[in-house]
Amino acid sequence: MKKLCDMTYGIVGMGLMGGSLAKAIRERVLGSAGAKGRVLGCDVNKASLELAQRQHIIDAAFLPDSADAMLSECDFVYVCLYPKATVDFLMQHKAAFKSGAIVTDISGVKAELFNHLDDILRPDVDFIPGHPMAGSEREGYAASSGLIFKDHNYILMPLAQNKTQNVELFKQLIAELGFTRIVTADARVHDHKIAFTSQLCHVIASALVQSAEDTQVTAFGGGSFEDLTRIALINAPLWTELFLANKTELLSHIQTFEKSLSDLRTLIEKEDASGLTAYLEQVRSKRTQMSVR
Amino acid sequence: MKKLCDMTYGIVGMGLMGGSLAKAIRERVLGSAGAKGRVLGCDVNKASLELAQRQHIIDAAFLPDSADAMLSECDFVYVCLYPKATVDFLMQHKAAFKSGAIVTDISGVKAELFNHLDDILRPDVDFIPGHPMAGSEREGYAASSGLIFKDHNYILMPLAQNKTQNVELFKQLIAELGFTRIVTADARVHDHKIAFTSQLCHVIASALVQSAEDTQVTAFGGGSFEDLTRIALINAPLWTELFLANKTELLSHIQTFEKSLSDLRTLIEKEDASGLTAYLEQVRSKRTQMSVR
Repeated sequence: MKKLCDMTYGIVGMGLMGGSLAKAIRERVLGSAGAKGRVLGCDVNKASLELAQRQHIIDAAFLPDSADAMLSECDFVYVCLYPKATVDFLMQHKAAFKSGAIVTDISGVKAELFNHLDDILRPDVDFIPGHPMAGSEREGYAASSGLIFKDHNYILMPLAQNKTQNVELFKQLIAELGFTRIVTADARVHDHKIAFTSQLCHVIASALVQSAEDTQVTAFGGGSFEDLTRIALINAPLWTELFLANKTELLSHIQTFEKSLSDLRTLIEKEDASGLTAYLEQVRSKRTQMSVR
Repeated sequence: MKKLCDMTYGIVGMGLMGGSLAKAIRERVLGSAGAKGRVLGCDVNKASLELAQRQHIIDAAFLPDSADAMLSECDFVYVCLYPKATVDFLMQHKAAFKSGAIVTDISGVKAELFNHLDDILRPDVDFIPGHPMAGSEREGYAASSGLIFKDHNYILMPLAQNKTQNVELFKQLIAELGFTRIVTADARVHDHKIAFTSQLCHVIASALVQSAEDTQVTAFGGGSFEDLTRIALINAPLWTELFLANKTELLSHIQTFEKSLSDLRTLIEKEDASGLTAYLEQVRSKRTQMSVR
């Protein structure tokens, strides 16, 4: 069986996520004495590649037009592009992957990817879809860090045809990167759950900032508004794509949230103190039961 | 002029906030060599008082029926009760305050307090309303900490009749407790702003937890849901009182938020990618301009 520390890793897209994965692989997987593994990086941004090379995070850099040369060397490929670009890349470069390679992605919505599986899969390459549940309100390689995965969740969506030993090897890699909980789900469940834990939260945070009457109001804040709106420092093109790619699931969660909010508003309007207290006691109890980091 | 380190402080209500203030006064105001000041504590909970005495946070403990004895000794009184109880306490114990004392409160809503000012104020006692913008999702003296005020905001609502030197002395105390920004406002502005930065955020966090389909969903979370709902670990009776005491302001902010959310939902429904990106770019820019801790 392959050893993680001796494998060649290819990172397609050296942005915040790709850069952070490259750093975590370099520091946590290839950091031991005698490790023979390498990290190769591919990006459109030459400056990011040069910085990553100077920092000894990647051993070699590839621009998109030489991506195939990189892929032919890689035992493990992490495609870290936006959702649509991920599907396009996997289809266009299908022939270039090394035979026996493990390939994964980090897309926040999986529906479109799974609709194109027939154009992506190759019998001798193991594509294992996944979603590392970590990120940052900052963007780009310069903001990347190998530490952002510590104690976070990872959602794996193995396919029926994936080889068991490859899934196990991937899980071992995920643990070495710092993640502490791996959840296995199918793509439909993933998109449904993620629409709640991630996309709905970004929608709420954005609407809350939008509803602020001015930017000075935080002088009156005690931390709650800050906590609720940190994720409103949002990457607009990426989240536009994510919201629309998961439109049906997201709209259903927004509707449920709007109903919960309207119920709470009605209790306040009616000055129903006992109803309000009961609602808030139930919320506290429910939140207490939730397992959080 | 009085020196903060030589004053006798009375804390009425040794819960999370009163306990934290007592600890911060003990550690940061009376911590220097030669300080002659004292901290006296009053609470219904005998166990809290005994713990605070054992920890040398308070020099003497008073149950509510001996509150007047405590008040007669205090140069500075912090009333740390729920909003209605604060008004009741200030009215009922009006005669007991030491002549020349500075008295303040920590109520999160000021309308009712200001409606009763005539029954609270005494010409020889300087009542200076205030609101320390700090807290915790935990409750009670056992969870109190003198560190929760560090770098937080404090809202002061001085009255026209307050003596300038007393307001200055209070501001000096606030800075020594660890707060870094003092905002002066009138009660109406306070209640309006706080309904947004604090109460609306608690309403949203509560409705979001309420809308979760189960308590296992956090296995699919990356931190956003956790950040948005930490304040949903809510003290139900306190927040019921705060929501209802500030009903009009809060409902107006809920309505504005519902409109912002509905605008965003409509963009998603219509799959208006450029409109969505423009909305999110505006949110990011607005949030970036906000001064936060």
